[in-house]
Amino acid sequence: MSIFNVELKKVVDDSYDIEVGFELMSNLVHDIKQGLVGNIKKFALITDSNVVDLYGKTICSLLQDAGYQVDLFVFPAGEKSKTRRVKEQIEDAMLEKGYRRDCCIIAVGGGVVTDLAGFVAGTYGRGVPFINYATTLLAAADASVGGKTAVDTPLATNLIGIFNQPKKVYLDIATWKTLPHRQIVSGMAETIKHAALASRDLFAFLEQNMENIFALDQNACEHIAQENCKIKYQVVMKDERESGLREVLNLGHTVGRAIETVSNYDLSHGEAVAIGLVAQAKLSVLLGYMTEEELNALVSLLEKAGLPIGIPEYIDKEELVKKLYTDKKVRDGKLRFVIQKGIGDVVEFAPGVYATPVEEALARQIIMDM
Amino acid sequence: MSIFNVELKKVVDDSYDIEVGFELMSNLVHDIKQGLVGNIKKFALITDSNVVDLYGKTICSLLQDAGYQVDLFVFPAGEKSKTRRVKEQIEDAMLEKGYRRDCCIIAVGGGVVTDLAGFVAGTYGRGVPFINYATTLLAAADASVGGKTAVDTPLATNLIGIFNQPKKVYLDIATWKTLPHRQIVSGMAETIKHAALASRDLFAFLEQNMENIFALDQNACEHIAQENCKIKYQVVMKDERESGLREVLNLGHTVGRAIETVSNYDLSHGEAVAIGLVAQAKLSVLLGYMTEEELNALVSLLEKAGLPIGIPEYIDKEELVKKLYTDKKVRDGKLRFVIQKGIGDVVEFAPGVYATPVEEALARQIIMDM
Repeated sequence: MSIFNVELKKVVDDSYDIEVGFELMSNLVHDIKQGLVGNIKKFALITDSNVVDLYGKTICSLLQDAGYQVDLFVFPAGEKSKTRRVKEQIEDAMLEKGYRRDCCIIAVGGGVVTDLAGFVAGTYGRGVPFINYATTLLAAADASVGGKTAVDTPLATNLIGIFNQPKKVYLDIATWKTLPHRQIVSGMAETIKHAALASRDLFAFLEQNMENIFALDQNACEHIAQENCKIKYQVVMKDERESGLREVLNLGHTVGRAIETVSNYDLSHGEAVAIGLVAQAKLSVLLGYMTEEELNALVSLLEKAGLPIGIPEYIDKEELVKKLYTDKKVRDGKLRFVIQKGIGDVVEFAPGVYATPVEEALARQIIMDM
Repeated sequence: MSIFNVELKKVVDDSYDIEVGFELMSNLVHDIKQGLVGNIKKFALITDSNVVDLYGKTICSLLQDAGYQVDLFVFPAGEKSKTRRVKEQIEDAMLEKGYRRDCCIIAVGGGVVTDLAGFVAGTYGRGVPFINYATTLLAAADASVGGKTAVDTPLATNLIGIFNQPKKVYLDIATWKTLPHRQIVSGMAETIKHAALASRDLFAFLEQNMENIFALDQNACEHIAQENCKIKYQVVMKDERESGLREVLNLGHTVGRAIETVSNYDLSHGEAVAIGLVAQAKLSVLLGYMTEEELNALVSLLEKAGLPIGIPEYIDKEELVKKLYTDKKVRDGKLRFVIQKGIGDVVEFAPGVYATPVEEALARQIIMDM
């Protein structure tokens, strides 16, 4: 018997820039000309059926005019397209068009496009570079930092995927004008979540600038896009593999995800998270980590953003409690919650532990009360 | 417009051990008990329909006896199973059994199992650890070093996959006794390739020990397994992303892959590579990089291993030339060959360039002559 040691220790630099601004398409083309992804001449532009006519074709033309080979790969818009089957269809279409390892993928769209295209890029030819051109507030708030890519399966959400960092992200705020109002509202929930868990300053900014943001004021929007990136980065950088700290990003998501399911997705993800944020804040008040005033400030801010702050009439609260406590994540009959501490912080229950078990009776009390 | 820099530079240590020996199952269990993959208690054992009864169930029982939860995930043996669909079936079966992120995958089998299970591991829960228990000479010669995992698609071989390093590899030589003779012969082709391109010593060892190896003499087999790992490691470590040097591993594969296809896979991969090795050596003699004696030594060694040294009668040589020169890899009518230099070295045509363009007329001359 003998041992052969395969020594594979090395420095990996996955750093990248997020460019935040208005109308960044020509910047994208400029960066590619300047060698953002080396000498690559072939680009697979992956987008969805909503975004293709709004921005996909324009970016495609700009790159073609600059002398690059670009093909559009379009899938039906919506979370339902985040499947292994759609990934396979994109791969086969790329192979059909002769794409091999010497190509780059450009994702143009929101979180679903980013998740799917980033995953395609990570496994195509065992990894080709990719660039994100993000067109939603939610992408700005959530999908641009962290490197998470994935698809859904019938039995699990986001469980098949990889960590894959883009070469660059463009957050084009000008594209938000074509977003349905409800989608901006939904993206605002993640922004408020970030403020609640990490930044009293961002919270105050949102209190003062909500109208400006919805009017797509350039400075206000750039500011929240940047702050979202900064907060998520600070959390994710310290915990790239999701061991402890990253859990704080689940603030509001314990009840949020459950109510999203129980509503049969009538509630958007952001709307569900807003309700979840209120639930954890009420819990926090009960446990002595927030004052009534702080709870009221959170509730007011969510209302200002047009987000729901209570459980809609049509939701069966008993079913919601049952959903929460029959989830596979429940251990010993207790569900774990991330809990806000005042405004702009979370409770650290023990070193590196940011979630606490909550008994069914207490969770029921909170939910029945909403 | 503003730029936010996501700084993600870090040291990654993917080092792992390859243990070479006879009957290593209890070592595997011992290592897991000692924390090879941390505190993980759930193991998905992925294997094929040939290997499951030979070794899969035994390993499964040993681990269960040691108190671990283990489930078997078995797919039909053969290259035809290396598909996205089979990957999906394994994932769904694992989800069905409640596997989440806190599991480890154990691949038990040859190259196909390693390729597929390593890819499943890389994307399950965005990456769970995996261990290879390799049961073929080909796995020992080829699949244990390099981190390549992949599946095939209708339009491309090995194009969808990722680089993913195992936590440990076990090369159990005792398992070779259950290999069909033809498969050992096939694995020997890659071993001879390694000797031809990198080690005069290994070449001499093979000349003197071919009978011992086929008799599965423990020392002889351990030696070639180690040398295979060492040579492949030396090449791959210097060039993990396949830019230049890794190309030397394609020695014999230019003609080899084409003849494998033209034979409609009647020739095994190793048999096809053996013929390809002779073709490149003849080219080398013509170009002045090998002597006739060195060519004859290579031919004799391949014969000794029971490998073919000429193009079988049933192959249409014109079709083979056509296949070579209509391949997508051909640029400007010239196909690139890696060329052996004497025994144990390859020609470096320019710094970092290990393949040279060969015109159709010259390639035709070599092929017609075989």
